[in-house]
Amino acid sequence: MGKQEWGFKENHELHAAAAFTIRNILEAIMGNIDEKRSGKPMIHLGHDLPYDITNDNVFVTAGANHAIEVVLTVLARPGANILFPRPNYPVYEARARFSQLEVRHFDLLPEKGWEVDLDGVKSLADSKTVAIVLINAGNPCRNVFTFDHMKKVQFFNCGNSKRTWEILVIADEVYAHQVFGEKPFIPMGVLGDIAPVLTLGSLSKRWNVPGWRFGWIAINDPTIILQLNMSYQVAGSLKSCLTISADPPIVIQGAIPRVIKSTPKSFFLNTNKLLKESADMFFEKVKEIPLVACPHKPEGSMFAMVKLNIPAFEDVVDDTDFCMKLAKEECMIVFPGDAVCLKNWVRVSIASEPKVLEDAIGRMKAFCLKHAKHQ
Amino acid sequence: MGKQEWGFKENHELHAAAAFTIRNILEAIMGNIDEKRSGKPMIHLGHDLPYDITNDNVFVTAGANHAIEVVLTVLARPGANILFPRPNYPVYEARARFSQLEVRHFDLLPEKGWEVDLDGVKSLADSKTVAIVLINAGNPCRNVFTFDHMKKVQFFNCGNSKRTWEILVIADEVYAHQVFGEKPFIPMGVLGDIAPVLTLGSLSKRWNVPGWRFGWIAINDPTIILQLNMSYQVAGSLKSCLTISADPPIVIQGAIPRVIKSTPKSFFLNTNKLLKESADMFFEKVKEIPLVACPHKPEGSMFAMVKLNIPAFEDVVDDTDFCMKLAKEECMIVFPGDAVCLKNWVRVSIASEPKVLEDAIGRMKAFCLKHAKHQ
Ligand SMILES: Cc1ncc(COP(=O)(O)O)c(C=O)c1O
Ligand SMILES: Cc1ncc(COP(=O)(O)O)c(C=O)c1O
Repeated sequence: MGKQEWGFKENHELHAAAAFTIRNILEAIMGNIDEKRSGKPMIHLGHDLPYDITNDNVFVTAGANHAIEVVLTVLARPGANILFPRPNYPVYEARARFSQLEVRHFDLLPEKGWEVDLDGVKSLADSKTVAIVLINAGNPCRNVFTFDHMKKVQFFNCGNSKRTWEILVIADEVYAHQVFGEKPFIPMGVLGDIAPVLTLGSLSKRWNVPGWRFGWIAINDPTIILQLNMSYQVAGSLKSCLTISADPPIVIQGAIPRVIKSTPKSFFLNTNKLLKESADMFFEKVKEIPLVACPHKPEGSMFAMVKLNIPAFEDVVDDTDFCMKLAKEECMIVFPGDAVCLKNWVRVSIASEPKVLEDAIGRMKAFCLKHAKHQ
Repeated sequence: MGKQEWGFKENHELHAAAAFTIRNILEAIMGNIDEKRSGKPMIHLGHDLPYDITNDNVFVTAGANHAIEVVLTVLARPGANILFPRPNYPVYEARARFSQLEVRHFDLLPEKGWEVDLDGVKSLADSKTVAIVLINAGNPCRNVFTFDHMKKVQFFNCGNSKRTWEILVIADEVYAHQVFGEKPFIPMGVLGDIAPVLTLGSLSKRWNVPGWRFGWIAINDPTIILQLNMSYQVAGSLKSCLTISADPPIVIQGAIPRVIKSTPKSFFLNTNKLLKESADMFFEKVKEIPLVACPHKPEGSMFAMVKLNIPAFEDVVDDTDFCMKLAKEECMIVFPGDAVCLKNWVRVSIASEPKVLEDAIGRMKAFCLKHAKHQ
């Protein structure tokens, strides 16, 4: 692997920008302080103390959305492209577009439980590919990847004899703990020795605190660091980017140790039990609705992807039209698949009370019956 | 003024990026909902509710640093330049550099109580100038602008017969409430009818909660909105940028009404009393130190700018060298002026106990005596 290359390049613009910050300058001055030698207690009239990063491979962010912003900012450079799943979590699309990263979509295959279309990935990747994004447990697909499948993806990412570049994996695992199907959740980081992985995590889903804004980026790169200094450069660029970006609120940071230590296991078990019940119920009941299908049994997270049989509708032209008319006629909101890059599907949040879900299914059914083509 | 032009242009890249977000799509769908007409309670399986902005001219941010990031991101476009004070708060320098905004520095004049060097501004501004930054009360200068001076700046910003473009003002007023000198603090927004003002504010200084990450951007533009739609475009671009950026933590948002209502006035009065005492003490005592000078009596915020007489030192070559050696020999941290764009000054935080400040002045004095040139 010594000859492999990375699409990723160090982001010198970020270092240059970060050099202007108080934090970086203070770090340099603090390097001169030696309380023991001088025999004096330190006086600090320089204001802000620099942020103490104890582990060079974990970076705290103001939520996973912020982590996405930081990672894509670091990776962006002229001509670079990035591989996104279709369907995808929209924040990736927005941030890539803003950073002028070229987006290339590979498919997740509903008939294979939303596995990655590896042939698609192979046809898209080239030497300018900086990374591939994998969301596991899936959003919006609610699937969980098997270990075998993840290994296949990783062996592709690490390159081969015909190809000399390797691809960094961005493993979005914010739903790691909301898994309730038969497959266990496996963090991509355990395969970081095959190709390096940036894992994105968040407090928001597991603890059900979307407004807390606390997430992280973890570099899982146990071997490459020694060979190509790649990990070091990624870490340095992430650090620079975070230096010119907002920290997560101190109030939340202060609460974390207690939150982690004191949340009873039953809280998580209960959440997943409720999600599983909703998912099972939705998956059964949705079969009663004509003109739609939910091809894959939910395994994690809290959405369902439902496919619309558009040609069978009388007067619904696509998924957006479906959502608009459903809102108008049934006073009910579901999300157009187009917005997560999957035309003519809809994304349904199932994190609701059984009663509400049942009511919702009734309304969708009435809507579909009303708008079905008359044969 | 009807013929005036603005350096600012609408940021279409941001709108395009924001179009990908859940929030924007949900807003479109929600537009179809009419609970009364349909006679049904709304079912929302689209997940996240869109953020409810009640006032189109105030935007909440994750602290004022985030506000700076957002405003400079919105203003940046190829070829644009921005006017910054010298000295300046370094986050502006870092973010402008990162957004590839060309930075042009005008001086603040210590001998005139750190007023803006208006002739300098005039020689720097051109048709590609998107904005001018003014920090009042000053950081790091601790000055407060007079109403007369602010009006002069505004009359320049709004253009004149020789010049057809106008300049947006970014008024950083995070220290608005830490003013304890003879001049009252006047918000730049009250002069928004002369030239439009974006006011940046924050909870962090007034309530002494730097980690709370709660700030805002307020558009003060009472007249121009009717003429050129400028305000509308700025508001729209800010909204797009905030849509693809992190919100302030909900925990803090929830606490704000109570924090604002219940903080006793005595808390603020006491803070300012302490700051004033420190400032007065520092200003008197610093006169005892050879080779340094503090030319302007502090009026606000919590720093002092101290000028170094570098030629009179034996072996201190500049401000950074001064800070490094002071750290090494006296175990004491002050901040090099170079880092706030003012070579051979140092920035001293005075928000410390009188005892600590006295100790600090003693150490600086010993250091200067030791390193003074022997005549
Ligand atoms: C796949 C995915 N990644 C990241 C996030 C953002 O998480 P956070 O709430 O920590 O910003 C979400 C939230 O919906 C998500 O679904
Ligand atoms: C002039 C100025 N603007 C903005 C900020 C940032 O404020 P916040 O703590 O709300 O991010 C500071 C903080 O030091 C400041 O001094």
